[in-house]
Amino acid sequence: MSIALIIPDRDLTELQQRLQQKLPQTEVEIWPNISQAQNIEFALVWKPPLGSLSSLPNLKAIQCFGAGVDAILQDSSIPLVPIARIVDDRLSQTMVSYLDGVVAHYQLRFDTFLQQQQQQIWKPKSPRKLTHICILGLGELGTAAAKHFVALGYKVSGWSRRAKSLPQVTSYSGDTELAAAVTDADVVICLLPLTEQTDSLLNDEVFAVFKTNSILINVARGAIVDDNALIRALDSGKLQAACLDVFRQEPLPAEHPFWQHPAVFITPHISAVTNIEAAIEQTILNYQRQQQGLPMQNLIDIKQGY
Amino acid sequence: MSIALIIPDRDLTELQQRLQQKLPQTEVEIWPNISQAQNIEFALVWKPPLGSLSSLPNLKAIQCFGAGVDAILQDSSIPLVPIARIVDDRLSQTMVSYLDGVVAHYQLRFDTFLQQQQQQIWKPKSPRKLTHICILGLGELGTAAAKHFVALGYKVSGWSRRAKSLPQVTSYSGDTELAAAVTDADVVICLLPLTEQTDSLLNDEVFAVFKTNSILINVARGAIVDDNALIRALDSGKLQAACLDVFRQEPLPAEHPFWQHPAVFITPHISAVTNIEAAIEQTILNYQRQQQGLPMQNLIDIKQGY
Repeated sequence: MSIALIIPDRDLTELQQRLQQKLPQTEVEIWPNISQAQNIEFALVWKPPLGSLSSLPNLKAIQCFGAGVDAILQDSSIPLVPIARIVDDRLSQTMVSYLDGVVAHYQLRFDTFLQQQQQQIWKPKSPRKLTHICILGLGELGTAAAKHFVALGYKVSGWSRRAKSLPQVTSYSGDTELAAAVTDADVVICLLPLTEQTDSLLNDEVFAVFKTNSILINVARGAIVDDNALIRALDSGKLQAACLDVFRQEPLPAEHPFWQHPAVFITPHISAVTNIEAAIEQTILNYQRQQQGLPMQNLIDIKQGY
Repeated sequence: MSIALIIPDRDLTELQQRLQQKLPQTEVEIWPNISQAQNIEFALVWKPPLGSLSSLPNLKAIQCFGAGVDAILQDSSIPLVPIARIVDDRLSQTMVSYLDGVVAHYQLRFDTFLQQQQQQIWKPKSPRKLTHICILGLGELGTAAAKHFVALGYKVSGWSRRAKSLPQVTSYSGDTELAAAVTDADVVICLLPLTEQTDSLLNDEVFAVFKTNSILINVARGAIVDDNALIRALDSGKLQAACLDVFRQEPLPAEHPFWQHPAVFITPHISAVTNIEAAIEQTILNYQRQQQGLPMQNLIDIKQGY
């Protein structure tokens, strides 16, 4: 039996070597150069091309090489096998550090001062008073972020599909409570999984109930935001700024209006990079568990999409 | 007896009213509209014009309206009376929040991503690994900053004129140890008082012993940095960035090369704004102590200059 690495546009030599070293009995192959497709029982994947997984007739398990499995599930031809994802404390820490830095950036008005510097304008301003943070999505990363901002003394509200309870977080759930979750927040952080339900969730209608002058941070998936609705919300002054780390198409196309919008801060999908050590450890563990007939760890619910 | 407010270029109506309310027996006057100069025994000052203090023949005490007294001491004609400054925990907190945000800005490479955005470049990069912070000046603010970064897990070194001891801070002192303090630091934060000894302290010679690719943050006084030496250090790549909140001349003149330097981030002296409530409280307390013949609180050592 063999493992296939299906991770396009990336040099996989080192990853292959490291897995091979830890699993000397198993052949680790890089898709699409698979010698015998019928030998592949386990696939480690990230943004697998459509049809790549269904070309492996004896596949028994899929290990996603990150936290978000939406790119796997959008291929309706994937075989019906268990799918696991990476859950990594270091990933949560990286994400929390990023969010902390972004909130400080706006709190301290660095966006304003950077624009003033370009125009050689000296105009001291007091910090913004951002006191209420709303977190959309209370999974692994959302929970870590909520705890962090609670500890810093922020008022924190959260919204998730199913009701969740976290200490000192005012939690809302379901479509009917989304407005209540965001309407008083100075900063809304999107950490939702991308599913059929969350695709374009942040649209004109939802931005209309955001607090005036609020700030959006999207670190989940670009497709959760309706890009044109966001631009309208920024241009109307409903939102005062947006920090976007994820986009409907990545890299963000050169002609996209986000690039030049003065109220948009773009980072190139760096808020939560999969830690290679954690990914290798969990891949090996899940491969061994699957070989031993045990359920893999950090399985996703295919129906729910995350 | 009366109090004089000597704070040029600022609307002092509210400050005058609030002091007057708390001290109904005392006349509070705004310089230069002083009815009887010989009645003034107490002056609340910020950047007092040269000669303004020596025009008050019966002055008994000077209260500085902030933490830094350098602007007072540069007037050699000031009367030999006690000088107190504001020491405010909230000032330390504001400063620490600012420094925390600046370190996050560089740690997360926001400087790089903001420049990439201007050029529509999508190029993910890992965070910088800034692990060692050196703090120049271990007074009230320097100590608060050192404690903060120690608590976050940074390696922290400190430098001050006289030897100081702080838990988990490697402390250096005196001219001969300055090089040792900065030479291994990824980030050097300047929180020194401006004195004859620190004027242009950060010059070519000192930048030469900075770690290659280090980052300077100056939140103390602009004159501590030799501007041209800093530009040379940035252009040579010795320093990779500088965040400057203070300048030799403020507002920073339009023609100054800092404005357009790609490695300089300018904020308009906002890192530690005097908290008006704390300043009023301490002014009233010190005025009353002075009237009762008690020493004022937070006196400075005029000889040492801070």
